[in-house]
Amino acid sequence: MSRPAAKAEPRSDTSFAARLTAAAADIEQLLDRLLAPAPAEGEIARPHRILDAMRYASLGGGKRLRPFLVVETAALFGVRRQHALMAGAAIECVHCYSLVHDDLPAMDDDALRRGRPTVHKAFDEATAILAGDGLLTFAFDILSRPECHPDPAVRVALVTGLARAAGLGGMVGGQMLDLAAEGRFGRNDAPQGEADVLTLQAMKTGAILHFCCEAGAILGHAPQAHREAVSRYGKLLGQAFQIADDLLDVEGDTATLGKAAGKDAAHGKATLVDLLGVSGAHARLAQLVSEAEIALAPFGKDGAILKDAARFVAERRA
Amino acid sequence: MSRPAAKAEPRSDTSFAARLTAAAADIEQLLDRLLAPAPAEGEIARPHRILDAMRYASLGGGKRLRPFLVVETAALFGVRRQHALMAGAAIECVHCYSLVHDDLPAMDDDALRRGRPTVHKAFDEATAILAGDGLLTFAFDILSRPECHPDPAVRVALVTGLARAAGLGGMVGGQMLDLAAEGRFGRNDAPQGEADVLTLQAMKTGAILHFCCEAGAILGHAPQAHREAVSRYGKLLGQAFQIADDLLDVEGDTATLGKAAGKDAAHGKATLVDLLGVSGAHARLAQLVSEAEIALAPFGKDGAILKDAARFVAERRA
Repeated sequence: MSRPAAKAEPRSDTSFAARLTAAAADIEQLLDRLLAPAPAEGEIARPHRILDAMRYASLGGGKRLRPFLVVETAALFGVRRQHALMAGAAIECVHCYSLVHDDLPAMDDDALRRGRPTVHKAFDEATAILAGDGLLTFAFDILSRPECHPDPAVRVALVTGLARAAGLGGMVGGQMLDLAAEGRFGRNDAPQGEADVLTLQAMKTGAILHFCCEAGAILGHAPQAHREAVSRYGKLLGQAFQIADDLLDVEGDTATLGKAAGKDAAHGKATLVDLLGVSGAHARLAQLVSEAEIALAPFGKDGAILKDAARFVAERRA
Repeated sequence: MSRPAAKAEPRSDTSFAARLTAAAADIEQLLDRLLAPAPAEGEIARPHRILDAMRYASLGGGKRLRPFLVVETAALFGVRRQHALMAGAAIECVHCYSLVHDDLPAMDDDALRRGRPTVHKAFDEATAILAGDGLLTFAFDILSRPECHPDPAVRVALVTGLARAAGLGGMVGGQMLDLAAEGRFGRNDAPQGEADVLTLQAMKTGAILHFCCEAGAILGHAPQAHREAVSRYGKLLGQAFQIADDLLDVEGDTATLGKAAGKDAAHGKATLVDLLGVSGAHARLAQLVSEAEIALAPFGKDGAILKDAARFVAERRA
């Protein structure tokens, strides 16, 4: 595959920013509607405290990058926006649940998230555990609804994909490795070299970002070559996201991040910044963005927004 | 509907016990296979510590009542046993995750479960949270596989049903109400009368037991009248299960239960035993079993095993 003149294209900043904002607004509205007080068919009641905590954890914050990736990937294949938003809302529920559980005292013990008290601080620890459980469960409810896609085979493929990306072989397993990386379970159990760190990161954050792009292709019954292209893009984006995160942890400050900076070093975690150095990490990041742009070549101009997304992920300051 | 001579039927103890044991053995074997070290397609790796904790939480214990109910309800509709076992395994993963999270220090703070240390005692709290998250996620993975049913519409209906039974409008919401019943969030938030306690119980334990029976009907494309019959049976069984549980908490002892007895009273929770008295609760229990038997009338002799199951649930000592 020859390298397209991606770097030479004018950056569609306005368009990208506007579309990210629009997707975030649509997701906010959709989650607000899905998490209404009235029980759905088959539910008995929605007790106010669990609903309040789930809404606190999922509404009013976040860039909604994951739903945006679903929407924009799906747009490449002519998927109805409403279907992509449903899948995006499900993935956002999984993302939010993971933040709630990761913030718990037994996990990362964080008091602040997006500049607000974490769920166990705003409510209590038991409520936070249950709100996380509720959001994770709700994600699969959302994916299984006909509003997500009329074809049950598509919906069930999304369920499989999300479960694999989020479970023991993806995000949950990655979080387990991340705790091991702090040395909690002894030195022998801590990831050591670059390969270990890459696996940890691919599982902890990469798998869900990767799945966002796959979801767009699944929703759109994309031809195999196009599915592979967005899958490759998604993997590279996930890697870029994590290096940028590691760099932010070193270079960022708490006020901008809305969460504590410098925690990785404090926990003794090995990151790619340790292994490659700050400038090596920046070089790797640029390389990943470039490869992500190349992966989108089959879509020509239609890939412009996703290219912007890769640069946004790499350059973000929070 | 006229009352069948259910009470006069000979109790098929041997057959019931043998079938419960057989279902438990099959589920053990299936979960052992599903939770193997090799990652499934789309998974990156299965880190040993998360896998160990998920296996510890789900293997080698429990009566496997829920999978048994799926298998026996499905058998009424000619469902292949392997399909019912897959759905049963998924529900068992949800059941086991709920026990792991309920046992956490911030929740019920239990050190003992089925006579063994709870997951957070055998491992640590963070691992227990993640193992629960992993099992919940894995349940939806299992349901979404073609081995569960060849028809994607059936699989996606099972996903919807399980998510609603397990989520904020079912089990998770019920656990939230249960914590409120301890008075944790103030007296105004605690369930008070019989209607509140029945809602709490229907959500906390009833919804999943009810769904086990619905799952059998979904797998078997059961005609509407039969689906309603097993649904009614499942609801009654769930109520009977909870009253029996409340009675055990008063009358049982820790050695037989494999968990601490008398905890409800210690926590100040209102149960049906408080509201009806011990003899009143026994009378209600007998009434529920009788109604559950009546609900099975459309199946004639084929309903015998499920009738036995209702009596087993009511009379169990652990």
